[in-house]
Amino acid sequence: MKEEKSKKILLAHGSGGQLMHDLIKNTILPKFNNLSLNKLSDSALLDFKGEELAFTTDSFVVSPLFFRGGDIGKLAVCGSVNDLVVAGSQPLYLSLALIIEEGLDYSLLEKVVDSIAQSCRNSGVKVVTGDIKVVEKGACDKLFINTSGIGRVIRNLEIKNIRVKDKVIITGRIAEHGLSILSQRNGIDFGVNIKSDCQSLEGLLLPLLNKCKAIKFMRDPTRGGLATTLNEIAQTSGLGIVIDETSVPISSRVRAACELLGIDPLYIANEGKAIMVVEPAAAENIVNRLRQQRLGRYAGIIGSITREPKAAVVLNTGVGTSRILDMLISESLPRIC
Amino acid sequence: MKEEKSKKILLAHGSGGQLMHDLIKNTILPKFNNLSLNKLSDSALLDFKGEELAFTTDSFVVSPLFFRGGDIGKLAVCGSVNDLVVAGSQPLYLSLALIIEEGLDYSLLEKVVDSIAQSCRNSGVKVVTGDIKVVEKGACDKLFINTSGIGRVIRNLEIKNIRVKDKVIITGRIAEHGLSILSQRNGIDFGVNIKSDCQSLEGLLLPLLNKCKAIKFMRDPTRGGLATTLNEIAQTSGLGIVIDETSVPISSRVRAACELLGIDPLYIANEGKAIMVVEPAAAENIVNRLRQQRLGRYAGIIGSITREPKAAVVLNTGVGTSRILDMLISESLPRIC
Repeated sequence: MKEEKSKKILLAHGSGGQLMHDLIKNTILPKFNNLSLNKLSDSALLDFKGEELAFTTDSFVVSPLFFRGGDIGKLAVCGSVNDLVVAGSQPLYLSLALIIEEGLDYSLLEKVVDSIAQSCRNSGVKVVTGDIKVVEKGACDKLFINTSGIGRVIRNLEIKNIRVKDKVIITGRIAEHGLSILSQRNGIDFGVNIKSDCQSLEGLLLPLLNKCKAIKFMRDPTRGGLATTLNEIAQTSGLGIVIDETSVPISSRVRAACELLGIDPLYIANEGKAIMVVEPAAAENIVNRLRQQRLGRYAGIIGSITREPKAAVVLNTGVGTSRILDMLISESLPRIC
Repeated sequence: MKEEKSKKILLAHGSGGQLMHDLIKNTILPKFNNLSLNKLSDSALLDFKGEELAFTTDSFVVSPLFFRGGDIGKLAVCGSVNDLVVAGSQPLYLSLALIIEEGLDYSLLEKVVDSIAQSCRNSGVKVVTGDIKVVEKGACDKLFINTSGIGRVIRNLEIKNIRVKDKVIITGRIAEHGLSILSQRNGIDFGVNIKSDCQSLEGLLLPLLNKCKAIKFMRDPTRGGLATTLNEIAQTSGLGIVIDETSVPISSRVRAACELLGIDPLYIANEGKAIMVVEPAAAENIVNRLRQQRLGRYAGIIGSITREPKAAVVLNTGVGTSRILDMLISESLPRIC
């Protein structure tokens, strides 16, 4: 008990991985004990006067503020929009709360706000309420943003609908966001400029969702990467997931950069991708439809839902072996979002 | 134009006062240009499938994290709850986003989460969705919290309903929150322990709102204090407000502390008070009803709506003079909330 008291919060508690899940499950959920929060989904699905509403929140602390393919403003809008979309809802309204470090260039703030406004127009959402706090120099690093979002639920995508033999789809190439941040932050040049995949997914996913009842569940693999999000799905459903490593879409330059750095792309964050769990008979058709769109052109089936191992993910590797694919344990890369 | 580019964000841009209003009006609103945001109210009032929904957001960066009368967790819940309540809505759902500095004591985080949970139970709201980010040491000061809230609109309290001769009520004694923070942060002992008024107001205000159609508008005078919030009401309505200084409820120890420090309690933040604008004939009755409750026991009529001066606030002082009461201009006290 004494030992417990002297514990400190580590960077890994914010990684999206195992330690964060432990913190949430052991320390936060029991204090609130309500069903919506317990589901730990990207958005809470709530009753509002008999209508179903999706509600989500995310804070963004990414460093640097501007990166190849985006900036903290675009990331904040896309992040909340995508959390609503993968929950099966049409994003309607966003809140925008800024925490600004004293001394920040006014023009930089304007650039970020421009980017937020542009991203909102692109996604068809409105910033309807906001807040600004300014803290003294050294009390925060330049700029943090929180966006919370409200969506209108189109389809109830419940993890409990997932069945053995369902197919797992990823809508595009993985690991681009995290790698873009890592390379810029550390001044590593891979010879090629890896660009974040930061994009909002309403245009890709909502028309499909409207047409296609075979889509059972979606989630966006952000912090902790594809491996961690697949583990969340496996743990919550109690089922297994078998992933075929060679089917996971990844660009040759991302693969090369990951090999160079000795990091696994399956644990690197994405900010414009979704995992979909779909009925087996419809999987090919859904992939074909995704591929007709620019954001879905590298979509593919990467695996299946299985009865065993329960609540775990198995990776069939390119060299013919199999291994359990764990959640992210340690933090490789703080402040990627 | 060049000069504009080199401008820096100042602490005063987050004060709730004139500079913050300028920043919002000149730099933020034009980029979004939507009616809900333009109203700059505590909560946006939105259509959700034909039903009216209130939506609000606030980040909390208060230092110290624990203060007499509350802590950052209680403050975050009360802040968002009160923003929903003064917008005429019943608070239903909260989001909770934590930005934590690496190395924070786990037990301190637990204390804050306990306080959030307790405050939610007190106010009858549920935390339904959340987010955790951990940043490296030095990238934020201990702990920042964002809460966004959704409420069900009970009564449409629109500023355009305010008329000349309406009465202005404050629900209790002013300046206690800001002064509590100031005294603890600077280790100033006023001989008496001034306690923050941090409280949620749903229990005081919602039953009244249900019963009493004479309530036209409410707002909670947080950052920038009573004077700044009255100016917001005057500017938005285009009407004048005349305040009688001697009617403003304030405890003798707060008054003494303010005199000692040479600061004006009218500009000090409150976190458990509301300004109400009500029909003149009902004002006494409303004050009497407020006074029957513990949180409203010092409620009083402090002034009236006038035709002149347009969009400004006049203070009739205790010594028989009158002066224009401006918005807060410079920041006297950063990170009070």
